[in-house]
Amino acid sequence: MDSERLGETLLPKRLALPIFCSDPLSSVAYATEEILLILALGGLAVLHLTWYAAVGIVILLLVVVASYRQTCYAYPGGGGAYVVSAENLGQTAALTAASALLIDYVMTVAVSVVSGVAAITSAVPSLDGHAVAMSVGFVAVLVWLNLRGVRESGRWFAIPTYAFIAVIYVMFAVAAVRMATGSTIRAESADLPVNAVSTYSGLALVLLALRAFASGCTALTGVEAVSNGVPAFAKPKSHNAAMTLAIMGGLSVTMFFGITVLAMVYEVHVAEDPTELGLAPGTPMSTALAQIGRATFGDWHVLFYALQAVTAGVLILAANTAFNGFPMLASVLARDRYAPRQLFHRGDRLVHSNGIVLLALAAIALIVAFDAQLTRLIQLYIIGVFVSFTLSQAGMVKHWRRELARPVTATTPAGAADGRGIRTRLAINAFGACLTAVVLVIVLVTKFTHGAWLVVIAMPVLFAGMKGVRRHYDAVAAEVAIGPGERPHAFAENHVLVLVASVNAPSLRALSYAKTLRPASLTAVTVAEDPAEAEVLRATWEAHGIDVPLRVLSSPYRSLVQPILRHVKEAPERTPGSVLTVVIPEYVVGHWWEQPLHNQSALRLKTRLLFMRNVVVIDVPYRLASARELAARELADRDTRQG
Amino acid sequence: MDSERLGETLLPKRLALPIFCSDPLSSVAYATEEILLILALGGLAVLHLTWYAAVGIVILLLVVVASYRQTCYAYPGGGGAYVVSAENLGQTAALTAASALLIDYVMTVAVSVVSGVAAITSAVPSLDGHAVAMSVGFVAVLVWLNLRGVRESGRWFAIPTYAFIAVIYVMFAVAAVRMATGSTIRAESADLPVNAVSTYSGLALVLLALRAFASGCTALTGVEAVSNGVPAFAKPKSHNAAMTLAIMGGLSVTMFFGITVLAMVYEVHVAEDPTELGLAPGTPMSTALAQIGRATFGDWHVLFYALQAVTAGVLILAANTAFNGFPMLASVLARDRYAPRQLFHRGDRLVHSNGIVLLALAAIALIVAFDAQLTRLIQLYIIGVFVSFTLSQAGMVKHWRRELARPVTATTPAGAADGRGIRTRLAINAFGACLTAVVLVIVLVTKFTHGAWLVVIAMPVLFAGMKGVRRHYDAVAAEVAIGPGERPHAFAENHVLVLVASVNAPSLRALSYAKTLRPASLTAVTVAEDPAEAEVLRATWEAHGIDVPLRVLSSPYRSLVQPILRHVKEAPERTPGSVLTVVIPEYVVGHWWEQPLHNQSALRLKTRLLFMRNVVVIDVPYRLASARELAARELADRDTRQG
Repeated sequence: MDSERLGETLLPKRLALPIFCSDPLSSVAYATEEILLILALGGLAVLHLTWYAAVGIVILLLVVVASYRQTCYAYPGGGGAYVVSAENLGQTAALTAASALLIDYVMTVAVSVVSGVAAITSAVPSLDGHAVAMSVGFVAVLVWLNLRGVRESGRWFAIPTYAFIAVIYVMFAVAAVRMATGSTIRAESADLPVNAVSTYSGLALVLLALRAFASGCTALTGVEAVSNGVPAFAKPKSHNAAMTLAIMGGLSVTMFFGITVLAMVYEVHVAEDPTELGLAPGTPMSTALAQIGRATFGDWHVLFYALQAVTAGVLILAANTAFNGFPMLASVLARDRYAPRQLFHRGDRLVHSNGIVLLALAAIALIVAFDAQLTRLIQLYIIGVFVSFTLSQAGMVKHWRRELARPVTATTPAGAADGRGIRTRLAINAFGACLTAVVLVIVLVTKFTHGAWLVVIAMPVLFAGMKGVRRHYDAVAAEVAIGPGERPHAFAENHVLVLVASVNAPSLRALSYAKTLRPASLTAVTVAEDPAEAEVLRATWEAHGIDVPLRVLSSPYRSLVQPILRHVKEAPERTPGSVLTVVIPEYVVGHWWEQPLHNQSALRLKTRLLFMRNVVVIDVPYRLASARELAARELADRDTRQG
Repeated sequence: MDSERLGETLLPKRLALPIFCSDPLSSVAYATEEILLILALGGLAVLHLTWYAAVGIVILLLVVVASYRQTCYAYPGGGGAYVVSAENLGQTAALTAASALLIDYVMTVAVSVVSGVAAITSAVPSLDGHAVAMSVGFVAVLVWLNLRGVRESGRWFAIPTYAFIAVIYVMFAVAAVRMATGSTIRAESADLPVNAVSTYSGLALVLLALRAFASGCTALTGVEAVSNGVPAFAKPKSHNAAMTLAIMGGLSVTMFFGITVLAMVYEVHVAEDPTELGLAPGTPMSTALAQIGRATFGDWHVLFYALQAVTAGVLILAANTAFNGFPMLASVLARDRYAPRQLFHRGDRLVHSNGIVLLALAAIALIVAFDAQLTRLIQLYIIGVFVSFTLSQAGMVKHWRRELARPVTATTPAGAADGRGIRTRLAINAFGACLTAVVLVIVLVTKFTHGAWLVVIAMPVLFAGMKGVRRHYDAVAAEVAIGPGERPHAFAENHVLVLVASVNAPSLRALSYAKTLRPASLTAVTVAEDPAEAEVLRATWEAHGIDVPLRVLSSPYRSLVQPILRHVKEAPERTPGSVLTVVIPEYVVGHWWEQPLHNQSALRLKTRLLFMRNVVVIDVPYRLASARELAARELADRDTRQG
């Protein structure tokens, strides 16, 4: 795909919403359940605290959406937490945000996919034992889709997201009508006992409520993606992105709150372990959303299965948000030399292939390590989100203060915000920063011992790794920098050694090439394990009348590499100002499985010669018949495509 | 180690015995048990058939030893089944023998190590659950020992082998004295019921007895190693090897028969599953030899533990036989171009490192796949052994017939066997060939469904693989062969492209080298993603006054590789008779983890350029500070060692 065609892949809102918002939208599928799971530890008596947690999350979500809308306007080129922190708060804050974001992208993939699989196993309990395999399979499918490019993905991704929204609202409508007409709907688990693990009161109860709130905050993950992705939106980019955020906020809040209301009204009871609900160990359990769906739709099984299907669909696509965001962030980090350079370049299909593969591998590792258990994975999820929220909003505060300080001039564009507008935006972001910082502390305190400590360790490790990469690149750049007058100057002399194993076409070709270089001296070098072998080669050499002197190295150590290395090291031709060139005939094979049959010693030799001063190695390829066929076929294919 | 020093590693008989014979000697530790395990399927009533199986095995062992002694004399250069078959029976027989041998070397490692671990867990039942980990660990230790060289191994390997022989004979003596003085010794399992799986009679009973006999034939494995290893013996090589075989035969027969007698007298009862002996599932069971030792030594616990320790020791060292034989065979196969060439050359420590590692990996795979269960592994063991026995003896028959046909001349050395001697040798080998062929059929019939089918599949696969490797090498040799008059001729013109990413020291170095080549044309080529980037580079280029024309390729596909490939492909300089050289500046780093930070695009580019006609790629290395330090340190180290 052509860079020019990148323009065509700009996204209208109706496609941007499913691509960038499937994560926050889909998280309503499990956010309510995570609250209930924590409060269940305190028994039936404390389940009413769900209301407080839910209201808190709704308020938080609205504040964060409002905050990020400001970012969309301020950073039309893309305002992820890394960019905003880098520009306003400096390197340390930026790298902290980047560490948090990288972890969260991985968590988004792991959590969303595992949760999607839980939706499937809730509908088909017989699949219960295959969660890990199914999750890994879905990650693999996402990799494949993303390597094919964002545009093609976008269209397909729209369907499940809108279907999910539709089915959820249909469910609300059915529930409302049924209850208005006098039905009493109860969840299948309503009569199961909720056994308190211990009694909570006073401060402990407050902490439990805060922990439930912290778990529910998963509903906020993924807001970052929209502000990060502003350049991918159709024009007017900032406006469309901000609108998309607002729509997403409205949908999220109503869906999350509606599901929570139904869970409370139907008396959905959940627990991490079936025994806590008085069930036999190993009993498959349905998710809270699946219970709500089954209770609401009753005999309309088709609607229940539709709910589970679209829930699984939107959750697995939510993971796709990360597949858009992660390679983009990796590319920005690579541009700033905090990540290996190859993450910077887009592959041939306009996507950052390396980043995609890296992300998938990390997510698969997590899924396997945590045995595809959602509640254990969730513990690692929210810290990074709120670290980046806080840094991003704090950065925006700094941004607006700088804007305020800037004198109004004639060059200020007409549409620019005036002083009062800026002050409003500053206030919104300042409030957002404070609120998310408070939530970050809550999450840290309540989840640290439940797994979040892993993230607290991983973030500094990533941070140090990125600093290290930058330090390396900086050191290299300083080392290879040249003064103003430096120019290339030919070496005084080029002495060439051609390694030959026998008198054959590849050796002749290498010798021919060496002659083309018109070297100061040209010697053929061979290694013989015994004098007889040496004699045979020398006789053949002379019989062919080859006009290059042949030097036979004996190999007392029966190694090919050592004698050559020593010969090169001690070559009298290596005078100051001259260069020694070692020419190696290389067999080019057509099939990967033929490779181990050739060139093994050459490879080891090259690696060692690289470290010698003023030595250059040249492989002169000799393409075997199979390789020539392969090259010819490829050439023909390309001509056909272009023709 | 020097080739010259190979002479010093020649083995006197006292060291050759433990190195080459620990396999057949140690197999007495499990051969009896394997007979009992099969007969136990028929219940208590058929256990007396053990006598027949044991006598059969003793006769077979004597015949095979006598046969292989002839090989030692006929092939002082080493007479493994592969060499003998190749010389006398042709390629197909030789490769069949090689396939069989390769599999058996792997099986020797797996079976011996697993059996050694069983000896340990018999003494320390609490280790029962860790058999796989312990087995893999021992294989790793063997790899380490063998990579250090055969001589050092030899001395240490002598101790456990001789200790094993000594302890077994001490046990016989103690048993004899105790029984002579009126004691009745019974095994701990003597009172356990032996529940027949089904009733055997008539032909079924005969088949069961034959299957027991086939299982006991493990006692014969490893005889091959001595005849294969004749060149490693001290002079007179053939005589010493034949003597060692005879000593080994005597020791094996007496130990195997003695252990079998004691097992019958003590009424040792064994079964694959503890429930067949009326025990609870999962009860740890002792090996038959451990039961005999415990019963014989009674309260002298220290002797029992000594028995188990030396049994484990000799078994694990038996695996070492394969670590000597396998790389030797692989090297011979590589010499004959049936195996990749790198298996031919010895590593720096006079051992075939590649073969050692390959063998260990295969054995570990088997141990893990079969969960370190000896009886399941044994099923795969004997087929290959008897295939190679039969082919080897048949080859020897052919060999002696040819010797007979040869006219006696004055040049016949004095010590050469006369007509009568040859006829005796021929008779011995002919009898051996027939007997082992019969046993091969017995083993195939009785063990096929019990796992041996795996070997029947694996052998043709190996066979085809080796044929394929040979076919490839032959095709390549034919392709690269040159006519008598062909000589190297310089190409008419050498056009050089130097790839540069920026104006820095590595680029200057590459340009300097390119100038040294005095090419017909010299162009610097760069790829720019946008015109601004191109402009910056061009300005710097001119500011430095570099006297090489710079060609900027635009990259509409945002790929570095594609534009360069297209430029090379379409370069007008590529005329017939000329060559195009692409020079790439390469960063040489000092630490492996720095490697991914550099040269990634260069690598992909090189791979693609290899397939283009008349294109040569040159890496001009630029060693970064860390790499220079590393090279300097290595150089200093070497100088210190040599000084």
